[in-house]
Amino acid sequence: MSKPLDQNPSAVLDFQREKRIGLSEAVFCARKSPGQIANILARFEEHATSCLLTRLDQKKFNALPSPLQKQLDYDSLSSTAFFLDPNPKPHKIRVAIVSGGTSDASVCAEAARTLAFYGVTSNSFQDVGVTGLWRLLERLEEIQDYPIVITVAGMEGAIFSVLGGLIDAIIIAVPTSVSYGIGSDGELALHAALGSCAPGLVTVNIDNGYGAACSALRIINKLRIV
Amino acid sequence: MSKPLDQNPSAVLDFQREKRIGLSEAVFCARKSPGQIANILARFEEHATSCLLTRLDQKKFNALPSPLQKQLDYDSLSSTAFFLDPNPKPHKIRVAIVSGGTSDASVCAEAARTLAFYGVTSNSFQDVGVTGLWRLLERLEEIQDYPIVITVAGMEGAIFSVLGGLIDAIIIAVPTSVSYGIGSDGELALHAALGSCAPGLVTVNIDNGYGAACSALRIINKLRIV
Amino acid sequence: MSKPLDQNPSAVLDFQREKRIGLSEAVFCARKSPGQIANILARFEEHATSCLLTRLDQKKFNALPSPLQKQLDYDSLSSTAFFLDPNPKPHKIRVAIVSGGTSDASVCAEAARTLAFYGVTSNSFQDVGVTGLWRLLERLEEIQDYPIVITVAGMEGAIFSVLGGLIDAIIIAVPTSVSYGIGSDGELALHAALGSCAPGLVTVNIDNGYGAACSALRIINKLRIV
Amino acid sequence: MSKPLDQNPSAVLDFQREKRIGLSEAVFCARKSPGQIANILARFEEHATSCLLTRLDQKKFNALPSPLQKQLDYDSLSSTAFFLDPNPKPHKIRVAIVSGGTSDASVCAEAARTLAFYGVTSNSFQDVGVTGLWRLLERLEEIQDYPIVITVAGMEGAIFSVLGGLIDAIIIAVPTSVSYGIGSDGELALHAALGSCAPGLVTVNIDNGYGAACSALRIINKLRIV
Amino acid sequence: MSKPLDQNPSAVLDFQREKRIGLSEAVFCARKSPGQIANILARFEEHATSCLLTRLDQKKFNALPSPLQKQLDYDSLSSTAFFLDPNPKPHKIRVAIVSGGTSDASVCAEAARTLAFYGVTSNSFQDVGVTGLWRLLERLEEIQDYPIVITVAGMEGAIFSVLGGLIDAIIIAVPTSVSYGIGSDGELALHAALGSCAPGLVTVNIDNGYGAACSALRIINKLRIV
Amino acid sequence: MSKPLDQNPSAVLDFQREKRIGLSEAVFCARKSPGQIANILARFEEHATSCLLTRLDQKKFNALPSPLQKQLDYDSLSSTAFFLDPNPKPHKIRVAIVSGGTSDASVCAEAARTLAFYGVTSNSFQDVGVTGLWRLLERLEEIQDYPIVITVAGMEGAIFSVLGGLIDAIIIAVPTSVSYGIGSDGELALHAALGSCAPGLVTVNIDNGYGAACSALRIINKLRIV
Amino acid sequence: MSKPLDQNPSAVLDFQREKRIGLSEAVFCARKSPGQIANILARFEEHATSCLLTRLDQKKFNALPSPLQKQLDYDSLSSTAFFLDPNPKPHKIRVAIVSGGTSDASVCAEAARTLAFYGVTSNSFQDVGVTGLWRLLERLEEIQDYPIVITVAGMEGAIFSVLGGLIDAIIIAVPTSVSYGIGSDGELALHAALGSCAPGLVTVNIDNGYGAACSALRIINKLRIV
Amino acid sequence: MSKPLDQNPSAVLDFQREKRIGLSEAVFCARKSPGQIANILARFEEHATSCLLTRLDQKKFNALPSPLQKQLDYDSLSSTAFFLDPNPKPHKIRVAIVSGGTSDASVCAEAARTLAFYGVTSNSFQDVGVTGLWRLLERLEEIQDYPIVITVAGMEGAIFSVLGGLIDAIIIAVPTSVSYGIGSDGELALHAALGSCAPGLVTVNIDNGYGAACSALRIINKLRIV
Repeated sequence: MSKPLDQNPSAVLDFQREKRIGLSEAVFCARKSPGQIANILARFEEHATSCLLTRLDQKKFNALPSPLQKQLDYDSLSSTAFFLDPNPKPHKIRVAIVSGGTSDASVCAEAARTLAFYGVTSNSFQDVGVTGLWRLLERLEEIQDYPIVITVAGMEGAIFSVLGGLIDAIIIAVPTSVSYGIGSDGELALHAALGSCAPGLVTVNIDNGYGAACSALRIINKLRIV
Repeated sequence: MSKPLDQNPSAVLDFQREKRIGLSEAVFCARKSPGQIANILARFEEHATSCLLTRLDQKKFNALPSPLQKQLDYDSLSSTAFFLDPNPKPHKIRVAIVSGGTSDASVCAEAARTLAFYGVTSNSFQDVGVTGLWRLLERLEEIQDYPIVITVAGMEGAIFSVLGGLIDAIIIAVPTSVSYGIGSDGELALHAALGSCAPGLVTVNIDNGYGAACSALRIINKLRIV
Repeated sequence: MSKPLDQNPSAVLDFQREKRIGLSEAVFCARKSPGQIANILARFEEHATSCLLTRLDQKKFNALPSPLQKQLDYDSLSSTAFFLDPNPKPHKIRVAIVSGGTSDASVCAEAARTLAFYGVTSNSFQDVGVTGLWRLLERLEEIQDYPIVITVAGMEGAIFSVLGGLIDAIIIAVPTSVSYGIGSDGELALHAALGSCAPGLVTVNIDNGYGAACSALRIINKLRIV
Repeated sequence: MSKPLDQNPSAVLDFQREKRIGLSEAVFCARKSPGQIANILARFEEHATSCLLTRLDQKKFNALPSPLQKQLDYDSLSSTAFFLDPNPKPHKIRVAIVSGGTSDASVCAEAARTLAFYGVTSNSFQDVGVTGLWRLLERLEEIQDYPIVITVAGMEGAIFSVLGGLIDAIIIAVPTSVSYGIGSDGELALHAALGSCAPGLVTVNIDNGYGAACSALRIINKLRIV
Repeated sequence: MSKPLDQNPSAVLDFQREKRIGLSEAVFCARKSPGQIANILARFEEHATSCLLTRLDQKKFNALPSPLQKQLDYDSLSSTAFFLDPNPKPHKIRVAIVSGGTSDASVCAEAARTLAFYGVTSNSFQDVGVTGLWRLLERLEEIQDYPIVITVAGMEGAIFSVLGGLIDAIIIAVPTSVSYGIGSDGELALHAALGSCAPGLVTVNIDNGYGAACSALRIINKLRIV
Repeated sequence: MSKPLDQNPSAVLDFQREKRIGLSEAVFCARKSPGQIANILARFEEHATSCLLTRLDQKKFNALPSPLQKQLDYDSLSSTAFFLDPNPKPHKIRVAIVSGGTSDASVCAEAARTLAFYGVTSNSFQDVGVTGLWRLLERLEEIQDYPIVITVAGMEGAIFSVLGGLIDAIIIAVPTSVSYGIGSDGELALHAALGSCAPGLVTVNIDNGYGAACSALRIINKLRIV
Repeated sequence: MSKPLDQNPSAVLDFQREKRIGLSEAVFCARKSPGQIANILARFEEHATSCLLTRLDQKKFNALPSPLQKQLDYDSLSSTAFFLDPNPKPHKIRVAIVSGGTSDASVCAEAARTLAFYGVTSNSFQDVGVTGLWRLLERLEEIQDYPIVITVAGMEGAIFSVLGGLIDAIIIAVPTSVSYGIGSDGELALHAALGSCAPGLVTVNIDNGYGAACSALRIINKLRIV
Repeated sequence: MSKPLDQNPSAVLDFQREKRIGLSEAVFCARKSPGQIANILARFEEHATSCLLTRLDQKKFNALPSPLQKQLDYDSLSSTAFFLDPNPKPHKIRVAIVSGGTSDASVCAEAARTLAFYGVTSNSFQDVGVTGLWRLLERLEEIQDYPIVITVAGMEGAIFSVLGGLIDAIIIAVPTSVSYGIGSDGELALHAALGSCAPGLVTVNIDNGYGAACSALRIINKLRIV
């Protein structure tokens, strides 16, 4: 009587996704137990398919079975891991990742690692927040060489607007939850990206470095073909 | 002077509730101490009435007196327990529980256990989120066999609308707090259920698997009679 | 150069919807111009299919072409109209519509008219708000004869909980925007329905009498078959 | 250079407050360190004035110097303490404290202890939530004997409206943060108290049992004189 | 087919309310049509019972049938009317209504008229906002003669706290929607009343002069008896 | 004394913007008077530069000086106008504009007109909301031919996720304020776009058809070069 | 019976305010009727004291008695008026008013007129929004000559941070309600001012040009003395 | 493959900031690891430039390398540290820091330490909350000697308005997160500062003692020169 749950033991994964949308299924670890993660990875292994794990913090990584840990290419700053070597074909197109300070480093890293999983190289431009505008202006020419710029910022997100008015790149804003007082949890930076006067900015959810990289990948996939 | 409180030692339970509304009083354990829970169960025992406990997490279960633990049919995934065997008359009508992924498993389980307490069998359909639409379409015919479908989803809750446009079942939406960034804590999924274009969806509170099951039970009680 | 829009002149209506989900496509008039409404109804006429129009206020009704007005069975309290006689097979099952006061009358009427479009009779119980509890208690026995009760309330929505603790019917809550001060626009009543202690309540969006009726119809469709 | 702060070592307490407003200064311990609390109590001792401490949880109480602990009449359910015997003149007027369940017990206790500090006796009526309406109706006559009723409720706070429509007492609503899902943290119950249809309810802040007792005391002080 | 509504033509009024709670049913006109108001007043006339109408603005008053207008004692500042002479027994206890400026005048007037309906005299103290603190201090002694003080304020509502720290009266705060920018619609003033450091304040909903008067009347009814 | 304002009479326009970011300065008319608009256009005329006007509703267009009206290529559905013939070089790359219904037509039109101003052709796919999923699936192959898809949706915005899981295009979501009840004003659709499970979606502000087109243009400008 | 209001006919004005805080009482006209405004000005006339009127829109100005209109030095852009010639001693210190566009003109004008009332000259720098950064950089040297800079901006308010990182002036931010979509009503700009990374910014309420000028005046009053 | 990040090892600090805006770059430690802090300080040491560290709580200070701890002048109440002796030229102008109670002490201390870093002396006036108004009035004359007053308050922030109406100083409000129930996290106090009736108040973000000091420093820098 007390076991009515038909708990289907093996997850039904969407292995056709990459073919359909150019991006494979990733494993979002934030709400999964180590056991659930191990079960899912077993399915990938059966299918001989590599996968990207996100939001896998150091503590949860340490709680995984030791042999599994060894199978993972883990990066603690970004809380990401690669399971089975993705071994992607390198892309010619590179992405710039621009941010204001060290506090946004983990979100930048999540974007960079996601790009790397698909063979895209990125370069990061840190410490270019607008309070010291010269730092951004000094590196502007360099940034302008990239067709796609992922811009990561918390607080008031003024860099979204400043950059949007200075360069003609495709700009993807990633608001971060680095802030305090009113508008914290990234809401202020998100609204700044959405309400910017600079035309043609697009945005993804707060702290969503993974999502920003995925949208860059959609663009890159089309840039190659067109 | 310092003990002015007239702390009535024994709770006044609503044993007539089942007769009135078809559902007996359940014990919501989230804000109760182990001592308070034990006292309340003692009242049920005196009254020789079985009861359902919800939101009883593993840690609080472990803190209950050891003999009491043994009297409970406890399930940790759903954080529910049955006190005294409910021994319900099995119903012919079954309920489908549809969800997008493993993260919603505990809410699904709370619904399933509540139904089981009253003798209703449920079947779960997991991993049918709309990002891999084929997974839902593949199992649609099966789902259509159930008159009542409890649909559990976090994030943007798109499955509520998709399912609502595809089947003629009674659909009860359970938004979950599985999400991050803006609209987290389940608010986005709740609003998606309420604001859906698909006609005739109803919803319960965030993470309220118990409530969804209770509304299914109200319907089943009427289905039997009419 | 200045006319780049490919404005497809005829709407693509979902005439298969009734077969799929038991409910046909309705025309939500709130954001449509009289011209757009006329165009859509022309499609229904071609298809010899009757339809329900909602949120068609008196002013917009008056702005429709005069011959079209005559084709409509219009009701101004509910802001609904029937286009072409739906001529439904009458159902045996009836629905109770319970509300606290005259201010909720238009939402009650929208629910009643939607039910009528599908051949379901409803009876309304007004002036049974909890401030004068005797008025509700006096009519309770009568209300208990209905398997489905649509409960419409604004302000603090206390009637949802009171009724939910007194009867075993299927209760669908419709919060209304009748309120003022903090929690106005119906948010307070909506939250009261979602956060109620009474087990097994379900709710629809604010002022959504149409949605409540649709969910009642999904239940009735199943009650007939099972 | 590095010690610019003129940290005035002794707090300036408002010993005239009781004379002015009939209520003495209480010590709100939630944001104070054990050291700060001890310093403040030392000032009360110098002044030979008793005082009430609120939001002093068990852990912080245990962190106080052991001799000071002995000087306190501490109650852990309400997280309150009396410093130096207040020894108030007992009042004839008593207060009813009405609540729905055991989860609200600590807020009820804070109100009761505050009243006791000033010599007012209270009686608590628990387990009278509206889901089992008979429990409230059964004790209604008893409650009606009290001129002042403090009503404590979380969740949807329906009891505020029900009680407000049934008795002619002075009703002070205390919304509590006992809830979950949408409207949690007591906001739903607060809004229910403010937006109630029952005329003449007043409310205090969420979980503010102390404040409810203080407003009762203001009334009692006037009731004695007029 | 198109008239399924059982629109019970005559409202069921709660004439027993005054006996139960000491306050009779009032007619809240904000969401009612002139026709609905006229119907309700006809019921009061049949029952030979006087009633108070609130939120009846000048425009709606003018839209009432002319003979009905003559039966009303109408006051446009407060948007209230008396139907049939209430002829109350005058109370000895008087109420002070304190406010900061002319912008709050209509809310003050609603409170005053409600009190007058029940035979309670009030005196208003205007222009005593805290920006010119001397104006409040100058009239403080006068205000202290009243056992009950209704305090009406918009904007930051600082007067609630200042007054609460200066006098021992029963203080009922009425936040008003007089404000602009952030915190407008009265939310700031409401929160200021709820979050005040001054002990023993109670509050009613935004702009709810009627509610403040009703709570004063509950107190007065008890002050007379005790 | 009374004219202290140094009101610099001629606006300083940013004619270098197109060179810098590939997009010229547009005139957002929503908060400007007809006189202010005329002054700004005079500057563009002096500079022999064409410009795009947005949020110019029919009423404000009619209030412009009659000769100026004749100089404008005005479209009332989109509330846009072209001043001086932009005469752009046509692009080979085309954009799909996908939406659920007629209510979103004006936002779709704003995007289409902005693209047209820069010589980009768009095709609209209307009536493909997910409640009638077959309508979307039927046209999917056609949509897949476009490298960039602007998706416009109000209500629960479920189409963002469904489409994001089905095609590999660059998808730009435009949430619209077409909704009612909770989550209205487009907030629900915005959050659905941000919180979608489908990887690689980007979003712009509510109702911002202009912004979506601008971001498409940034991508097209890069697609041409790379 | 029906006239219980003690409506004290003459407002009690705070003529000592200027002496106390250096700023005289202004008349905020937004919620006052023409009659109330006329009564208040009569008091100023009796007292031979000039005053500043704010939020007096053209329509309300036109509704004032014609002789009174002639006594006012009215400016419609700022919705301000001077009653009786303030005739202030001119200050040497001047204020810069910096803004992004024509949409903020009325808020800038309110600040400028308030300063003028007290004899302070201001210069406005318009069209210096950050989307065309060169426009701000071009005028930066000029702006740096002012010790106090009032910065007025709506939308994402990026100029607050950019300016705060470039100059050493005292910077007072005035967020405006010029925006749309999410974060509208000026909330986004307000939060941007509060959450800016640039150290030492201060802010006033949304659209509060008057308040910004008053805080500049407090500073100027001290600059003169120190 | 797994190390795609170009993590530039040394932060690019803005050493020109002090010259530009009169304030040097401070190190906000809240989101930085001990390692990141040590790296940044190494850069300051190379540059022989002293710096201020904020939000460095005791636990994080203890986690710094022991030699580095010795180089810091650390203050735990304010969570600030000075790295390398700033050795500023003392200013003649002093600042008053006014607050209501001991709970605001850490925010006051952050302001005082920031001022000290730049050679400005401050004096604190604690325990002057408005509930005991005499305490503020008693010290008013003393406070009036300061040209700049930083006012720190949580809860309902009534002191902002009271002080603003009593003195002619430059008043900088710092709302604090000291509160509970509705409006907690400092939002109520922030809104009270913004919505105050007292003219000429300015505000900084919640708990931002550092920002308040910086704005005072901007004023002092100008006071010296003008």
